[in-house]
Amino acid sequence: MEFFNVATVEDVDVILKEIASTYLAEEEIEELLNSVGRIVSEDIFATIDLPEFNRSTVDGYAVISQEVMGASESIPSFLECISEVRMGEVVDFSLQKGKAVYVPTGGMIPEGADGMVMIEYVEKLDEQTILVYKPIAPLENMTLIGDDLKKGERVIRKGKKLTPYDIGLLVGLGITKVKVYKKPRFAVISTGDEIVDVDAAQKVGQIRDINGYALVALITQLGGDVFQKVIVKDDFDKLQTALKASLEQVDIVLISGGSSVGTRDYTKDVIESVGGKVLVHGISIKPGKPTIIGQVNEKIIFGLPGHPASALIVFNRFVKTYMQQILARNEKELSIVATLAGNVHASPGKETYQMVQLILGESGWRAIPFYGKSGMMTLLAKSSGYIRIRDDQEGLMKGEQVEAFLFQEVML
Amino acid sequence: MEFFNVATVEDVDVILKEIASTYLAEEEIEELLNSVGRIVSEDIFATIDLPEFNRSTVDGYAVISQEVMGASESIPSFLECISEVRMGEVVDFSLQKGKAVYVPTGGMIPEGADGMVMIEYVEKLDEQTILVYKPIAPLENMTLIGDDLKKGERVIRKGKKLTPYDIGLLVGLGITKVKVYKKPRFAVISTGDEIVDVDAAQKVGQIRDINGYALVALITQLGGDVFQKVIVKDDFDKLQTALKASLEQVDIVLISGGSSVGTRDYTKDVIESVGGKVLVHGISIKPGKPTIIGQVNEKIIFGLPGHPASALIVFNRFVKTYMQQILARNEKELSIVATLAGNVHASPGKETYQMVQLILGESGWRAIPFYGKSGMMTLLAKSSGYIRIRDDQEGLMKGEQVEAFLFQEVML
Repeated sequence: MEFFNVATVEDVDVILKEIASTYLAEEEIEELLNSVGRIVSEDIFATIDLPEFNRSTVDGYAVISQEVMGASESIPSFLECISEVRMGEVVDFSLQKGKAVYVPTGGMIPEGADGMVMIEYVEKLDEQTILVYKPIAPLENMTLIGDDLKKGERVIRKGKKLTPYDIGLLVGLGITKVKVYKKPRFAVISTGDEIVDVDAAQKVGQIRDINGYALVALITQLGGDVFQKVIVKDDFDKLQTALKASLEQVDIVLISGGSSVGTRDYTKDVIESVGGKVLVHGISIKPGKPTIIGQVNEKIIFGLPGHPASALIVFNRFVKTYMQQILARNEKELSIVATLAGNVHASPGKETYQMVQLILGESGWRAIPFYGKSGMMTLLAKSSGYIRIRDDQEGLMKGEQVEAFLFQEVML
Repeated sequence: MEFFNVATVEDVDVILKEIASTYLAEEEIEELLNSVGRIVSEDIFATIDLPEFNRSTVDGYAVISQEVMGASESIPSFLECISEVRMGEVVDFSLQKGKAVYVPTGGMIPEGADGMVMIEYVEKLDEQTILVYKPIAPLENMTLIGDDLKKGERVIRKGKKLTPYDIGLLVGLGITKVKVYKKPRFAVISTGDEIVDVDAAQKVGQIRDINGYALVALITQLGGDVFQKVIVKDDFDKLQTALKASLEQVDIVLISGGSSVGTRDYTKDVIESVGGKVLVHGISIKPGKPTIIGQVNEKIIFGLPGHPASALIVFNRFVKTYMQQILARNEKELSIVATLAGNVHASPGKETYQMVQLILGESGWRAIPFYGKSGMMTLLAKSSGYIRIRDDQEGLMKGEQVEAFLFQEVML
């Protein structure tokens, strides 16, 4: 009936890091076009220079910059226009003195030329002669071979979650497949005699499986795979059977409910009964204190509180951290600075998470505390994020500048 | 060879809003569990009170608060414990004076009781008698019927993009299907004689279809459906054929490349040739000036610049805005305040978008300008976001506080 050794948030981070170091992250090959949001499992290097040729960044004429030095409205430079480069065309001649070549934006600039004069500053005197009214600096209006990427340069670092922009970059290199980490495999077990499925006929006194489905949606969104989602009664044998089955299939087991100190909470005992070690039993965090973390071989079991808001905050704080640790990622929790619109009380000795609604006004972001109980389902759905109050703070006052964390990661 | 009526960013917003108002957003029914990231097309109301019964938020004893008034360590209140409520059990009796009932966290509190005493403050004298050492206030440690949600209350507003937390909430209400907007249908046409597909054998002078694939990935990530992605040569007839085919299938056509003023740019003419109206030809934005917006009936065509960074910035600024407008959404572009780590020059008269890398240091976020050319593929993949410099500003100085926009939306 007691939490032994309630761990601090920092303790838990250390323990998670240790467990994560034993995780064997497997890799697989994915088609580039299906890989947005996947985590690359090795550094990717450029196999070619990009651009592969000197490219024009404007529509105009490739020239030798020295030849138009001093050109002006009153004293233009005369050049012979010898040809027109078409897009995609390979130019195999070298530009000679006194000559110019039309090159469209993106087109290849011939050897010898060292800059582009924009068409705006050029007049065609006849089919062969152009007048240039403005000088250019060497290398003006062009990109050189390898300006964008040099062969051998690292393009994407291991552990990056691929964005649409990365896809564009890899397409540019002609890469069609990438090596990514396999998605971590999860099981979600909801425990409780009162829990029924979403489509069950619900009797008074029963609760639909809010936690189970919200966790599945969160895991999926964060790039995990849910292999199993079950509802189990408050019964030692049934929970043990469910846990054993899960451990055979997945890397991470979430048991929601049953980690409090009520008489029917079997999570701790069940973890130990399958040969596991309970490393954390109670965390000094509010909400979320009755959290259990156990380990069986290289697999991890999180016993989450039953209250929806508590369960999901613990998920965001610890399970998400663990997912990032095992896949070598370095996303940060996204935060913005906001002015607190109401007083917030904290529990000394606990890191307190206060849900807030964020509203963008004339004078920046305002964080409005949402004083719901952690049993309320609406708490997280109505909040935009949370603020964190350290365990040595007694609370925060209205008007203070606070760091508000959104329920989103930053991809930097 | 000229941009007629270059529009300001504000002009374009007004024009987009007008076009969006003609869009016929269709709806469809989606399984709740597949609906994360979908946009709900009607307000959703609570069909029941939540909780549906008075619930305990602690493990302890349901009592009549008056009966434990004044209870203390030295003078406890004696109560008769008449039974134990199990989780999920319906309690159909009313609590009488002098009695108490054990109720676990989440369990149903009998009528008559108006608060819960935590087990920590109770001692069992014998099987029938408990000692209560601490008073409670009325309604302490319990949630009342409808505290979380009242029947008839709006749970989700029309236009919201569903989050995992919303899924939990809707599960709690027993909702298994939701009405959502059909995904907007896109075609992506990349034009240019130099453009080849990602898996083509690339010759010098050619460029792989970076824009096409990055746009497809962006559209998909933002909740659109890409029906068609093609590469078309710089040829009036071929582009016209591709556009006609696209307009039969989709709502939004993106043509990338071909909207500059080079001799081979047919986008404007082709839009007009299919009976469309060109509403914008050139925007005072940098990069992104050579952007075209046309309308054919209730369909919209965006002619995006050929440079990858320009195309994707214009996509983020205008196409995304349009997507939000047609689906009644109200997400905001996510921004954080950062200290600028280098000078940034702007083009007077143009709204300038400067790519930045964001780094979180001891003294907050730093925005490091990324001085790449808009033709560089690496520009966006290496940046974390951008800062916006108004058209009446000449630039920004190192050390200034700036608002940095991430390539992400905030879900508030």
